[in-house]
Amino acid sequence: MIDWKITERGFYPEKIAFNGNKFLIANGYMGVRGTLEEFTKDQLVAVNMAGLYDQVGNGWRESVNAPNGFFTYLIVDEEICRLPECEPSEHSVSLDYRNGIFSRKTTWKTPRGSLTVESERFVSLAQPHLALMKYKISSNFHADIELITGIDADVWDINGPHYSNMELFEEDGLIKAIGTTSEKGHKICVTENCSINLPSEKRLSIKDKKILRHFCFILRPEHDCVIEKWISVCTSNDTENYEQKAASLINDYMKSGYKYVKNSHIEKWEERWKVSEVFIEGHKEAMEALNYSIYHLISVAPRHSKSLSIPARGLSGQVYKGAVFWDTEMFMLDFFLYTDPQVARTLIKYRIDTLDGAIRKARYYGYDGAFYAWESQETGDDACSDYNVVDVFTKRPVRTYFKDKQIHISSAIVRGIMRYIEITGDKTILDEGGAETIIECAKFYYSLLLKRLNRNVYELHDVVGPDEYHERVNNNGYTNRMAKYTFDMAVEVLSSVKNLEPETAKRLKNKYKVSQLIKSFTDASKHIYIPQPDKNGIIEQFDGYMKLEDASLEEVRSRLLDEKEYWGGANGVASHTRIIKQADVVTWLAMFPDDFPHEILLANWRYYEPRTEHGSSLSACMYGLLACRCGMPEKALPFFMKSARADLEGTGKEWAGLIYIGGTHPAAAGGAYMTAVNGFGGIYFEEEKLKAKPQLPPNWQKLRFNIYYKGKLHRVEVDQKGGVSVTREP
Amino acid sequence: MIDWKITERGFYPEKIAFNGNKFLIANGYMGVRGTLEEFTKDQLVAVNMAGLYDQVGNGWRESVNAPNGFFTYLIVDEEICRLPECEPSEHSVSLDYRNGIFSRKTTWKTPRGSLTVESERFVSLAQPHLALMKYKISSNFHADIELITGIDADVWDINGPHYSNMELFEEDGLIKAIGTTSEKGHKICVTENCSINLPSEKRLSIKDKKILRHFCFILRPEHDCVIEKWISVCTSNDTENYEQKAASLINDYMKSGYKYVKNSHIEKWEERWKVSEVFIEGHKEAMEALNYSIYHLISVAPRHSKSLSIPARGLSGQVYKGAVFWDTEMFMLDFFLYTDPQVARTLIKYRIDTLDGAIRKARYYGYDGAFYAWESQETGDDACSDYNVVDVFTKRPVRTYFKDKQIHISSAIVRGIMRYIEITGDKTILDEGGAETIIECAKFYYSLLLKRLNRNVYELHDVVGPDEYHERVNNNGYTNRMAKYTFDMAVEVLSSVKNLEPETAKRLKNKYKVSQLIKSFTDASKHIYIPQPDKNGIIEQFDGYMKLEDASLEEVRSRLLDEKEYWGGANGVASHTRIIKQADVVTWLAMFPDDFPHEILLANWRYYEPRTEHGSSLSACMYGLLACRCGMPEKALPFFMKSARADLEGTGKEWAGLIYIGGTHPAAAGGAYMTAVNGFGGIYFEEEKLKAKPQLPPNWQKLRFNIYYKGKLHRVEVDQKGGVSVTREP
Repeated sequence: MIDWKITERGFYPEKIAFNGNKFLIANGYMGVRGTLEEFTKDQLVAVNMAGLYDQVGNGWRESVNAPNGFFTYLIVDEEICRLPECEPSEHSVSLDYRNGIFSRKTTWKTPRGSLTVESERFVSLAQPHLALMKYKISSNFHADIELITGIDADVWDINGPHYSNMELFEEDGLIKAIGTTSEKGHKICVTENCSINLPSEKRLSIKDKKILRHFCFILRPEHDCVIEKWISVCTSNDTENYEQKAASLINDYMKSGYKYVKNSHIEKWEERWKVSEVFIEGHKEAMEALNYSIYHLISVAPRHSKSLSIPARGLSGQVYKGAVFWDTEMFMLDFFLYTDPQVARTLIKYRIDTLDGAIRKARYYGYDGAFYAWESQETGDDACSDYNVVDVFTKRPVRTYFKDKQIHISSAIVRGIMRYIEITGDKTILDEGGAETIIECAKFYYSLLLKRLNRNVYELHDVVGPDEYHERVNNNGYTNRMAKYTFDMAVEVLSSVKNLEPETAKRLKNKYKVSQLIKSFTDASKHIYIPQPDKNGIIEQFDGYMKLEDASLEEVRSRLLDEKEYWGGANGVASHTRIIKQADVVTWLAMFPDDFPHEILLANWRYYEPRTEHGSSLSACMYGLLACRCGMPEKALPFFMKSARADLEGTGKEWAGLIYIGGTHPAAAGGAYMTAVNGFGGIYFEEEKLKAKPQLPPNWQKLRFNIYYKGKLHRVEVDQKGGVSVTREP
Repeated sequence: MIDWKITERGFYPEKIAFNGNKFLIANGYMGVRGTLEEFTKDQLVAVNMAGLYDQVGNGWRESVNAPNGFFTYLIVDEEICRLPECEPSEHSVSLDYRNGIFSRKTTWKTPRGSLTVESERFVSLAQPHLALMKYKISSNFHADIELITGIDADVWDINGPHYSNMELFEEDGLIKAIGTTSEKGHKICVTENCSINLPSEKRLSIKDKKILRHFCFILRPEHDCVIEKWISVCTSNDTENYEQKAASLINDYMKSGYKYVKNSHIEKWEERWKVSEVFIEGHKEAMEALNYSIYHLISVAPRHSKSLSIPARGLSGQVYKGAVFWDTEMFMLDFFLYTDPQVARTLIKYRIDTLDGAIRKARYYGYDGAFYAWESQETGDDACSDYNVVDVFTKRPVRTYFKDKQIHISSAIVRGIMRYIEITGDKTILDEGGAETIIECAKFYYSLLLKRLNRNVYELHDVVGPDEYHERVNNNGYTNRMAKYTFDMAVEVLSSVKNLEPETAKRLKNKYKVSQLIKSFTDASKHIYIPQPDKNGIIEQFDGYMKLEDASLEEVRSRLLDEKEYWGGANGVASHTRIIKQADVVTWLAMFPDDFPHEILLANWRYYEPRTEHGSSLSACMYGLLACRCGMPEKALPFFMKSARADLEGTGKEWAGLIYIGGTHPAAAGGAYMTAVNGFGGIYFEEEKLKAKPQLPPNWQKLRFNIYYKGKLHRVEVDQKGGVSVTREP
C-alpha cells in the first residue's frame, strides 16, 4: 500500500514557487498554496478564491487572492526567527494527501538553544469557508518568545492590487480583514480567532496591511506552546451577510473544537476516497502518483456551488488569470463523471450559465451562435488577452491568437454536455439550457464554414488547433472533426426535441427553426472537410503542415537563443517546422478512435510523437490514451506517469516568453486518470452497460476503481491477463 | 530651362552606395552603377544585366552582374592614386541625364605636383551591347604614371558568387572575361579594347579575377594622356556566338571612332526626349526632377527584346533579386504607353510569356488559374522567398507573406494588358496570349473566392494588400476591387471572342467552356464583397482594420527599439495599429476614382494620409494622384515632388530588417510621371479621344507633354487657368 504522504526535507529557496503548488491544499472554495506561515507575497503566498475575479486598469483580469489568515512568525530572544531569512538546522514540509493536511516542522539553533515549530493546517472539505491551523513551538531552553499571528492583507497579485480598500479591525475578539475589489466592489471578508495554551502578554497591531496579534511569553522546555487558528473566509458573492456569517462560523465551530472540525474534514476526504481511490497492484509509484493527482482534482472541485468550474491552474494562484479553459471538459470531466457526478453537473452548468458571454464573443467577431471564451471567468466573456506572451528579446507583448482563433473550444463544451448525458443518463441538463448551448455552438461553427465556389466541401480557415505553436492555419483536422461532431450532436438534440420536457420542446421550437437547422447542420456535417490519411496513413494536421521543415525536436531546440523564448507564434523556432506543442491529430484520434482502423491510429501516433515537444501538460495523456487504443500499454506508461507526476516533479514549463505560467495542473491529473481508467482499464459503454477491455502495462497485476454509470456505482477490477470484474451496486 | 545635369562636388565615402544609384547609366540591356572607375565590389560596383539570373545553393536567386570593363586606376610615382583611399583635393561626379553620360573629375595633390583625372562614360542607347569610356589624365609636373585598366571580374554579388568559372585571356589585342553562371551555365562575355594617345610600356596581368593592361609612361604637363575604352557585353542568351559577336562589335565600332558612337548614342537620347520630355513652366525644380525620373525610365526600358520587363530596382543591382514586381504594370507602364508603346508591348509580352510560371505557382498553392510571381524572373516562377526580412534582434529570417498572400499581383497584369489595349488600340496582344492571361487570372481569383454558407457574398481571405505591414488580412478592399475588375475584364474578353482573330477564337473555344466562364465570372463580379464607406465616408482597408489601435505615426515610430527594425509582419510596431506602409485604399480610389463620389475620395485621402508611413516609394504618387482627383493640386505637389526626387534625395528606406534594399526607384519615377500627366495634366480618354481636365499646382504656368494614343502622337499643352490644347500628329 502507498503511504499517502509526500515530504520534502531541507530548505531550498529556489523551490519555494514550485512547492507552493506541489503542497497546495484546497477545498473547491479556496486554495492555499503550500508556502510557510511566515511567508508573504514575496514567496508567492496565496489564498486563491474560486470564481471571484477583478481587473485593475488595463491589466489582465484575474482571480482574487484573499488576505492570508495563516500568517504567523516568531521573535525569539528579540531576533526574528523565520524562513527564508533565518537558516534552519532541520526543516521539512509534508502533505498528507489522503486527508488534505499540510504540515511543516522546522528547527532553528539559537545562541541559547534550539527551537522547533511544528504546524499543520487544512481548509475544511466539510465546511468550505473554514480553515484551521495548529501551530506548536517547543524549545530546549527558556526562550523569550514573541509570537506574531494574524491576517496578512498585503496579498500577492500578478496584475493587482485588486483591493481598492482594505479594512483591518478587531471586534469581539475576532480580527478581520475586509477587502473591496476594485472593479466590481466585491467584499472579501477574512475573520480569525486564535487560542493559545499559555499565559501571555497580548497586544494587537495594525500596520503594513497586516492585522496581527502579539503574544509575548517565556517558553519552557517542559511546556510547549500551542496555538489554534480559526479562519473563515466569506464574500459578498456568497451572502449579503458575509461579515456576520464569517464571524458566526468561527464562533460556532470553535465550540465544537479543533479535533471535531479536523475529523469532519477527514471524514469528507474518506467519503471521497471511498469512491475515487484507484488501486494499482504491482506499481506503487504509479498508484501514488495517480492518487496524488486525484487528490488535486478532489481539492479543486466546486462542491459549494451548483454552477462553477475549475481553472486551468486549479486554485494555485492567478496564473492564466484563474480562468477556465477547455482543460475542464476535455481532461478533468471524466474523473468527476465517474466519481462525483454532482460536481460534473456543476462544471457543465457553469458553461450553460455563461452561454450569453459566448454569444457576445461570437457577435464581437461577427459570427453567429456561441464562441466560448478561451479563458473563461464568471460571465463567460473572454479573459484571454490578444497578447499572451512577452518577447524575450524586445520585452514587447506578442500578438497571439488563442482567444480569437482557437475555435475548437466551443466543441469541447458540447462534448462535455453529451458526455455528461452519456455517463449519467441525466437529460435534464438539456432542459436547463444544455440544448440551447449545443445548438448555439453548432450555429457558431455553421457561420464559420467557408465554401470555395468551385469545391463542394466546407472548410474552417484561420484557426489555432490544440497545437498552439502553429497559429492561423486552415482545416486543422482536430477542429474540423470536433465541428462535425458538434453538428451531429446538434442534429441529435434537435431531432429528439419531442423527447425533451414539453416546456423545453416548446422553448426550442419558439426560438429555432428546428427543421431548417436540422437540414443545415446535417448538410454541414456531411460536407465539412475532414483530412484523410495519406498514402503512409498519416493525417496532415492542417493544410500545408507537410510542406513545413521536418526538423528534429533537438534541432529545433538547439535554435533557441534564450531558454525562455516562446516556441510558437509567428516567428517561434517551432512555427515553421513540423514540431508541435502538444497532441493534435493524436487528440482527435484519442477522442474518436473509431474514425480509422487501428493501423492508421498507430501510424499517426508513431509519426507525431517524435515531433511533439509536449510543451503543454495536456499532451502526454493523449499520447498515453491513444497508445492504449493501439494496444501499446508499455508505450503508454511513460506518458501516463508524466501526466500523473506533473505536479510532483515540476518538469512542466514555468515560462511562456516572459510570463510566469507555473501552478498546479489539474488537467494533467485528469488526463492521468483518463489514461488509467479509459486507457489501461479499457472501460467503455455499450448497450447501457459498463464494459472493459483492459490492457495493463507490464508489472501492473491488477487495477481497481469505482465508476458511477447511469447513477449506479460500479466496482471494476481488471488484471494483467485481461480478466474483468464489474460489480454494480444494487 | 533646366540644365539637364546633376553634379555632386566633394567626396563623401558614406554616399558611395547611394550615388551608385543616383548616377546610374543604363540602356535597358545593362546598367552601370554611378561608381568610380577605380572602385571594386567593396564600393558596390555593378554592371547589372537585364533578364539574366542565377542561384547559388540555397541563396536568393538574383540577377547577374557582368565583369566590369571600366575598371581603371593609376599609380603615380609608385604610389597608388585612387579613391576612396587617396584623398583628393577636388572631386566631382556628374550625370548628364539628357544624354546618359556619366563623368567624373578628380584632382590629387602629390608631393611633386597635382594630377587630374577626367572621365566620361556611357552605355550606348544605339547599340545595347556597347559601352565606352574616355579617361584623361593631366598633371602639372612630370609624373611617373602606371595606368592600369582592364576588366575586373571580381564582381559584387549579394547572394553569389554566381560564376562557377571565369576565363580571363587576351586574344587579338582584345582582353576578355567569360564567366559561366553556376545554375544554368549562362555565358557572360565582356570584351575590351583600349587605345592610348601616348607611347608607353605595356604589359598584361591576370590576377585576383582581374585581367589588366598596364601602361607605363611619363606624363608631362604639356601633353595629357587620353585613353578610350571600348567594352562590349554579350551573353549566350543573346546568341550562340556571343564571343565572336562581342569581339566584332568592338572591332567594327572602333573603326567608326569614339565620337561617332557617342553621337549615335546622343541621337537616340534626343529621339526619346523629343517624345518624352515634359515641360513645366513656373517650377524649374519640378521639371528637373520629373525629367530626371524620365531619364531613369528611358534608361531601363528593354528595347533590345520583344519580351522583357523592368526590375523594381531598375538595373541598379541585385537588390530585390533583380526581379519584376507589380511596379511595372501599376506604376511604370503609363509612361511607356504614352511615349514608347513598343516598350509597353515588350513589358506586357513578358507577362504573357511567363504565364506558365504563374500557372505553376497557382498549382503549387492548390489554386486554379494564374498566380503571378510577386518577384518575377525569366521563367515567371516566384523568386520571392518565404523569408524576406531579417529580425534585427535575433538575426533570424522572418517569415513574410509577400509571395504567397499578395494575390493582387495577378490583377495588375490584367490591368496592364487592358490599359495597353485602351491606349494603343492594339488588340493583337490578346491574340498573342493576352486573352488566356486574363482568363487564367480570373480563374485564379475565382478559385480563391470563399462563400460563407449563411451569406451571399464572396470573400477573399488571408491576403496581403499593398500595405504590406498588415499581413494575412481578410477582404482587403484594394484586392477585392481588383479581383472584381479582373472578373469584369475576363467577361469582356470572353464575350467578344468572336471579334478576335479566328485562330484566337478557335483556340479559346477549344480551351475554355466560354459561356460557363462568362456565367461564373459575371456571378463572381456581382457577388464579390467590396467594402463600402462607413458613416464617415471611410472605407475600412480590411476586415477589422478599424478595431486596431489608432496610434499616431510619431507614437508608432517612437516604439522602435532599432532604426532598422521592420515595421510590419507579425510583430512589427505598425502591425497592430492603423499605421500603414503605403497607399492601399487610396491606391484603389486612385485607380477607380469613379467608384465613389468626390467627397468619399476626399474623406479617405484625409483619413489615410496621416496614417501612412510612406515606407514604400510606391506610396507618394498614389496620394498625389488622388489629391488631384479631389481637386487639391496643391496637396498633390509635395507627393509628386517626393516621387520625382526619390532617386535624387535618397530619403527612401535602405533597409528592411537587416536586408539592404537600396537602389533606383523606377516605379516612383513612373508614379511621378503619372501624377504629372494624369493628375495635374488631367488627361483622360473618352470616345476614342484624348482629353484633359488639368489642374496645375500654384506657380505651374504651363505643362506640356506628348502622348501616343491609338498610335498617334498627341502634343498636349495645359495651363494654370485650365486651358487645354491637344494637337494630334497627322
